[in-house]
Amino acid sequence: MTEKQLHAVIIGASGYTGAELVRILYGHPNVVIKALVANSNAGQPIKSIYPHFSDIDLPDLIKLEEVDFAGVDVAFCCLPHATSQEVIANLPSQVKVIDLSADFRLRNPDDYKEWYGKDHAALEQQHEAVYGLSEIYRDQIKEKRIVACPGCYPTSMLLPLIPLLRNKIISSDNIIVDSKSGITGAGRSPKTANLFTEMNDNVKAYGIGGHRHIAEVEQELSLVAGQKVTATFTPQVVPMNRGILSNIYIQMAEGKTIDDIKNTLRDFYQDEEFVVVHTDGYAPTTKDVCGSNRAMMGIFADRVADRAIIVSVIDNLVKGASGQAVQNMNISFDLPENTGLAKISMFP
Amino acid sequence: MTEKQLHAVIIGASGYTGAELVRILYGHPNVVIKALVANSNAGQPIKSIYPHFSDIDLPDLIKLEEVDFAGVDVAFCCLPHATSQEVIANLPSQVKVIDLSADFRLRNPDDYKEWYGKDHAALEQQHEAVYGLSEIYRDQIKEKRIVACPGCYPTSMLLPLIPLLRNKIISSDNIIVDSKSGITGAGRSPKTANLFTEMNDNVKAYGIGGHRHIAEVEQELSLVAGQKVTATFTPQVVPMNRGILSNIYIQMAEGKTIDDIKNTLRDFYQDEEFVVVHTDGYAPTTKDVCGSNRAMMGIFADRVADRAIIVSVIDNLVKGASGQAVQNMNISFDLPENTGLAKISMFP
Amino acid sequence: MTEKQLHAVIIGASGYTGAELVRILYGHPNVVIKALVANSNAGQPIKSIYPHFSDIDLPDLIKLEEVDFAGVDVAFCCLPHATSQEVIANLPSQVKVIDLSADFRLRNPDDYKEWYGKDHAALEQQHEAVYGLSEIYRDQIKEKRIVACPGCYPTSMLLPLIPLLRNKIISSDNIIVDSKSGITGAGRSPKTANLFTEMNDNVKAYGIGGHRHIAEVEQELSLVAGQKVTATFTPQVVPMNRGILSNIYIQMAEGKTIDDIKNTLRDFYQDEEFVVVHTDGYAPTTKDVCGSNRAMMGIFADRVADRAIIVSVIDNLVKGASGQAVQNMNISFDLPENTGLAKISMFP
Amino acid sequence: MTEKQLHAVIIGASGYTGAELVRILYGHPNVVIKALVANSNAGQPIKSIYPHFSDIDLPDLIKLEEVDFAGVDVAFCCLPHATSQEVIANLPSQVKVIDLSADFRLRNPDDYKEWYGKDHAALEQQHEAVYGLSEIYRDQIKEKRIVACPGCYPTSMLLPLIPLLRNKIISSDNIIVDSKSGITGAGRSPKTANLFTEMNDNVKAYGIGGHRHIAEVEQELSLVAGQKVTATFTPQVVPMNRGILSNIYIQMAEGKTIDDIKNTLRDFYQDEEFVVVHTDGYAPTTKDVCGSNRAMMGIFADRVADRAIIVSVIDNLVKGASGQAVQNMNISFDLPENTGLAKISMFP
Repeated sequence: MTEKQLHAVIIGASGYTGAELVRILYGHPNVVIKALVANSNAGQPIKSIYPHFSDIDLPDLIKLEEVDFAGVDVAFCCLPHATSQEVIANLPSQVKVIDLSADFRLRNPDDYKEWYGKDHAALEQQHEAVYGLSEIYRDQIKEKRIVACPGCYPTSMLLPLIPLLRNKIISSDNIIVDSKSGITGAGRSPKTANLFTEMNDNVKAYGIGGHRHIAEVEQELSLVAGQKVTATFTPQVVPMNRGILSNIYIQMAEGKTIDDIKNTLRDFYQDEEFVVVHTDGYAPTTKDVCGSNRAMMGIFADRVADRAIIVSVIDNLVKGASGQAVQNMNISFDLPENTGLAKISMFP
Repeated sequence: MTEKQLHAVIIGASGYTGAELVRILYGHPNVVIKALVANSNAGQPIKSIYPHFSDIDLPDLIKLEEVDFAGVDVAFCCLPHATSQEVIANLPSQVKVIDLSADFRLRNPDDYKEWYGKDHAALEQQHEAVYGLSEIYRDQIKEKRIVACPGCYPTSMLLPLIPLLRNKIISSDNIIVDSKSGITGAGRSPKTANLFTEMNDNVKAYGIGGHRHIAEVEQELSLVAGQKVTATFTPQVVPMNRGILSNIYIQMAEGKTIDDIKNTLRDFYQDEEFVVVHTDGYAPTTKDVCGSNRAMMGIFADRVADRAIIVSVIDNLVKGASGQAVQNMNISFDLPENTGLAKISMFP
Repeated sequence: MTEKQLHAVIIGASGYTGAELVRILYGHPNVVIKALVANSNAGQPIKSIYPHFSDIDLPDLIKLEEVDFAGVDVAFCCLPHATSQEVIANLPSQVKVIDLSADFRLRNPDDYKEWYGKDHAALEQQHEAVYGLSEIYRDQIKEKRIVACPGCYPTSMLLPLIPLLRNKIISSDNIIVDSKSGITGAGRSPKTANLFTEMNDNVKAYGIGGHRHIAEVEQELSLVAGQKVTATFTPQVVPMNRGILSNIYIQMAEGKTIDDIKNTLRDFYQDEEFVVVHTDGYAPTTKDVCGSNRAMMGIFADRVADRAIIVSVIDNLVKGASGQAVQNMNISFDLPENTGLAKISMFP
Repeated sequence: MTEKQLHAVIIGASGYTGAELVRILYGHPNVVIKALVANSNAGQPIKSIYPHFSDIDLPDLIKLEEVDFAGVDVAFCCLPHATSQEVIANLPSQVKVIDLSADFRLRNPDDYKEWYGKDHAALEQQHEAVYGLSEIYRDQIKEKRIVACPGCYPTSMLLPLIPLLRNKIISSDNIIVDSKSGITGAGRSPKTANLFTEMNDNVKAYGIGGHRHIAEVEQELSLVAGQKVTATFTPQVVPMNRGILSNIYIQMAEGKTIDDIKNTLRDFYQDEEFVVVHTDGYAPTTKDVCGSNRAMMGIFADRVADRAIIVSVIDNLVKGASGQAVQNMNISFDLPENTGLAKISMFP
């Protein structure tokens, strides 16, 4: 496979997901990083904002209009929502687009307006997009021009919930998800609330009752359930850099048991190398997947009858963002899906 | 009040709750620390195991049998369950006992056996005990000889839930609590799982579907609900020292609204100086109460109809253990309830 | 003593040292907090920027010009350097001023200009000022109108070095100090470099070879040595909130031994309740003094002949800032020096 | 190169350096992990003690006597000192040994006895050993049968000091090193001092004036200086998992300048891909090298005349242990030196 060379551009290279893409793609045997776009730092070497890239052979940061897209195979877009759709609408049509923003995740433009507060500005491109949850939409990811990578929280929830709802193992009512995230999820903009001194030794819930990520989760759950699903979701930040742990509280469908849940998930993911299903009472921790593209889940019966709890973990920057983005690139270009992606976490 | 002098003994002074009691009681104007019991370190000054007590005038650690209980007014017992009941059964009857273990929390000996795996060995003393949730059982705490201080997780759950269930604002079904704790809750015994390197940058769920603390929670909820209540509870450790944040997912009773929840809790706690009810959309964080004896809660409507979320925080070592213990001592001896207890957290 | 009531104003209440002063003074039996000044947040309750002050009876934040200084006994000034001198120059002359900035620490205006880059703008007030290292300048602190509290790093260095140099136990050459600080020292302004995600699991040296704090250290060391002293100093931030640990590498004076160092420091501080000298091989840690106004030091012979190492720790926000400020207020107003100040750290 | 397949055995796979070797070697294209030895956990899959290895194809843990050394090319030895020499003395002579303990680092058996408290028990093998600082002893690493990988702290010190001393840029007197380490350096044994709750938000100095690692440093410095060198060294643990930052305080040789230091180090390391020399005023942080096999150093003039400060960082588990071990394996077997080793750190 090493003969295939993809030319890649990273748009939005100054944020954490951009930097993580640089790290992963630099080690990818089939990728040449052709341009790094970061408008506000254009003209500087990337090491000026990320010194860990010192003495690494990488192109300097440039403005988007400076990119020569001739020969570019794939563009990763790590921009804020709203900005992302504008940029993508103007990319050359031969370029495969892997978008890490929320802009192309919601199929219904009304949903986009409701949750993101403005009209969608790239409806045409929306039709070329697929929701990029790799294990679920593999075929369409390959075919569609734009891959809208899922949010970090949604990835941790949907991987266990979709197979269970699709197979009618659980009820679509009463789904409650309580998630804890590392603080990289808040990005690199300087805000008082995200200072070390504010978050060290602290836990903070936010977006209670209405975080935007629930929109794409409800969209996907409704699709597989065949009816409108509304779910409860509480995100929290805890004092760590990477990782999401979601506790998913579910109600079994009538006549279903905890073993049905275990068997369904084990069977569904048995050939997936980036999903590990623990059915033996082990509850995975975020460090089990730190730096890895794997998702892990553990399954537990509740003491309340007919209820179960799934503990689902990912690294928000890898499987929850840049890793899944590269996985989607691999799928798109017929590379082995694991190329350039770590399975073993960096523990401790 | 400063004329009243209570002679106190701390049994089990080598653990974190014992050390926290030493800190609080040393600054309490009405308390003389008469003896510090720590069998395995007996004969040493307490600074040998806790150097932050260097140059503080405190008695050396001794064995329990070395304590002269003449003139002792109150004994704090910070021992593991099972050990605690044996020790308390043999304390002189004139000594008020503030127990921080689980041994006298469960009213029904069968429950004790079910959850702690052995017969209760001090049934007689059990009748002299009260569940020491200060704001709920104030009168009995004063009268009974033994105060069984609640567990840390239960304190964070029961303070919001008891008034709501008692006033039939919420349903007793479908109560789900997802709690995150600092690692001091795991105690000071050296275990690989609690090493810095294992828990740093990590989140870990444990006791899923059946943690012991749910037993006392269900006991207390069943009492106020007038029927058997079974609840879902998932504890987790996050990389911080102190603090518990519990997200409590509840179903409103028919015809009740989010305002009923807010009003009920605000009214119930309006004269309590150690409970703060936020009804304006603020979600308290664990650092808001670090080092403080206060509990704080924030109340939120869920996007799922008729459901609500309460975010409840305490410092597990203070309101969740040693602080509430001292509050109960103050109640017992007619001291102003806040004597020696901090309201303002040590932030940042 | 509780009959004496001091009326205090905190100017610059929105930063960390301001908030720490609020916490300490709220619990001080002889202080009434009369005004909290924070120009950019004026008009808001302090809980709007520090929710841990919710339900605490405190005045709202106001602008400096709104303060009625009639009846005010003491003003704490927690402003950035340069701003501080302007404000202090205009305070009523009957008000005792405790300044936490660098503006009045340097006796020589040329030094101020060299290190802070501009002319000193309050030379008249400079003559009324004393360097507020409590244990060293107690008498002058009482007499002078303005107390210039030392920097956090300098406090940790000067407490051990002054007695040793004064008694000619060590050489004034070859003094090297390597300090590690909690990140509260960087203040509450939002900067990318101080985000949780940047400093978590990280150590960073800064100001290498020329941090401003060395100016006041060299000033004080030169005074006691009777000759110009130049010292090496490297500050670092480590992932914790509070605390400074300074390793001080020193050369013994001819004929002096490690025991001379131990005896000198032990004798010098034996009656000081806020300084603990460990001479038995214990190296104090920052947590030994977290939240406490105590300084601790441990003394060690080096394997290199005639050299020694002193490990010196303080809480940068307490003994290194707001606690020493209150200690200086107590000295100034003839209160017992420990009033309102904690000796026991909040461990763990 | 991918055709060459080395069969490797890891002896002592249950500790952190063992686990890190598993992670690195699993991703190494020329290595087959043939056996994982961990006597106390023999019979278990490695995922039972390291769940992040779940669903990774690795051999189960076995006892040393169960290893079939036929066809084994290289053995990595991650055992405690003293144990290591016994095991290595009995390994088949055709096996290249990469030892991560201290047992073969000291050339003089008297030094070993002085610092490690017992006679060296494998003097014969000592003659086959080389001190495995890759960039300095590359040729001998290839030739000798046993490679004694340097300690983590020494690696961070010797990389800058050896070229400077060898070229007589600095004096061999007055070398002072103040190092801060992540807590993985303390290993995985459960000890109270290493609990999360004890080290979180804390800094602790230890081994002051006589840590064992100074023995190998003085050995190597004396060799290049041509005379006995004695140096000051203070190690500290700070609340992070990985990383060492050493501040090295040095005295320039007569007539030498800061530019001589910069030029010497830049020239010496210009072709080394695992050493980055910053001469532009940047002070590298530990996160710049987290998970990477690179060492980075920054060079600074001191304000004290003729003195300089070097800030040197590594990841203690990678360049300070398992990464350098693999680098040495690559050297030994004529593989490209960077095979299987990351240059880019996992930031943030």
